Amino acid sequence: MASPSGPIAVVDSGLGGLTVAAALRRALPAEDLVYFGDTAHLPYGNKSADTVFGFIRQIIRFLLPMRPKHLVIACNTATALALPAVTQEFPGLSVSGVIDPGARAAVAAAGSRQVPVIGVIATEATVRSKAYGRAILRRRSMAQVLLRATPLLVPMIEEGRNSEDPLLDMALRQYLKGMLAHRLDVLVLGCTHYPLIQRAIARVTGPKVKLIDSAQQCAQDVVQRLRRKQLLRLPALVGASEAGGSFRGYVTDDPARFAALATRFLQTRVDPPVLVEPGRLHMPDSAAVLRATA
Amino acid sequence: MASPSGPIAVVDSGLGGLTVAAALRRALPAEDLVYFGDTAHLPYGNKSADTVFGFIRQIIRFLLPMRPKHLVIACNTATALALPAVTQEFPGLSVSGVIDPGARAAVAAAGSRQVPVIGVIATEATVRSKAYGRAILRRRSMAQVLLRATPLLVPMIEEGRNSEDPLLDMALRQYLKGMLAHRLDVLVLGCTHYPLIQRAIARVTGPKVKLIDSAQQCAQDVVQRLRRKQLLRLPALVGASEAGGSFRGYVTDDPARFAALATRFLQTRVDPPVLVEPGRLHMPDSAAVLRATA
Repeated sequence: MASPSGPIAVVDSGLGGLTVAAALRRALPAEDLVYFGDTAHLPYGNKSADTVFGFIRQIIRFLLPMRPKHLVIACNTATALALPAVTQEFPGLSVSGVIDPGARAAVAAAGSRQVPVIGVIATEATVRSKAYGRAILRRRSMAQVLLRATPLLVPMIEEGRNSEDPLLDMALRQYLKGMLAHRLDVLVLGCTHYPLIQRAIARVTGPKVKLIDSAQQCAQDVVQRLRRKQLLRLPALVGASEAGGSFRGYVTDDPARFAALATRFLQTRVDPPVLVEPGRLHMPDSAAVLRATA
Repeated sequence: MASPSGPIAVVDSGLGGLTVAAALRRALPAEDLVYFGDTAHLPYGNKSADTVFGFIRQIIRFLLPMRPKHLVIACNTATALALPAVTQEFPGLSVSGVIDPGARAAVAAAGSRQVPVIGVIATEATVRSKAYGRAILRRRSMAQVLLRATPLLVPMIEEGRNSEDPLLDMALRQYLKGMLAHRLDVLVLGCTHYPLIQRAIARVTGPKVKLIDSAQQCAQDVVQRLRRKQLLRLPALVGASEAGGSFRGYVTDDPARFAALATRFLQTRVDPPVLVEPGRLHMPDSAAVLRATA
């Protein structure tokens, strides 16, 4: 059974989930966080559901002995492709993702227009999964949902381009042109990397389009879940900045590169995480071992 | 022992090596080709040497039972990070890569300038490995070698952007600006994807810079190796276009996506390859099995 003393586990293909971890840290400074970035297998955004679920399953098996009180899949692609299967395979695990909270916030922001137009930008795999469309239409059946895969944004952000970069600006204008012609009301940033270029996105959409930060919404959703289940840690009596819970990072490749990118990403120093070799994640279950040795 | 009847194996992280396979097909229409694209783990270009060697080792173990007469690592990153280790671990295997042939051609093209300036554009990992610098300076110690990581080019090409795309043009102008200021003589396209945007690159460099297509050079190198070892198949007596050897493809993720991209990539119809689940590649060797079951 989950206990308030367990850590919150944050799982991502790489760096993007750090925006969720940072939002959790701000909201819940007393909680211990365990972050897992699957850097040997990233990105997930151009891979199939079977493969991404395979990666996520191994990560969860690795994290379970740490007894997380909640596990958040802080990656839109992994949420879209693997969350239902995770819920089924790990019925005792408290688990949530990024898409439902983002869809909920998008519907709330859509306002009173009879058929609001809600856009979503995301990876190729998230778009193909249609998960955002389903989650939005379940809550507001009369919305018009426009999806656009924007596969260059993650590598642009990881290259260190910021909101002032002219190449990023041109890419956003290309990607958003069709949506903006449809009088967009709301745009969901359907990838946890995108909040880092929110200023550039807002410049292209103009002030009338409401932007939904799926990372921020996802973190708020985790806070509410823990509160409902009375699993929040009581903050220490010292000031929040000193009451910090611990942060432990794990990656499947190149801890130094991760630390350098994460430091730039969060604009705060991040120590190198622990390396978990991808081979350890692929440790076969006993049946497979028997087959391999037979 | 290698026999002329064995296939030529072409290994890549995904699609890029298809440019090498296509060049091999044109030069050697009678040969059987086996293509392996590690699409579950792509890209290799932002990963560490240990991880990339781990992937390549598993792929070679999978391919060895097919008795390839030669195996070409048709990926600059994998060549840079794993070729020396592959040579050591599989001493009986005839194996080659992309970097030495590209470096050789670059030096040959550099001409008579006392200190020629040779630029290389490649993935982040290829640049960090310094493999091109070593391979060029071994052949011409007075050259000046300029390296530039160009991580957006692969996702731009896989997104379907061609040489006329304005975003691609702007990215190339940003990436090449510093090099062009140094009076570049030769530019090596140090990634097997890049030949597909050679026209855009030439427009930015201008006609005085000689472009070296590492995929083309790599394929020519394989032809020469097989000829030297008398392992070439005699072309059938029918016309070359009818003498086609077989082509078998294997990928670790999403055969349909691969086939669609490959068809666009090669501008010729490509059938879906066989799916090899990544778990099968990670089959532990017997020592690891003993540890896991002990």
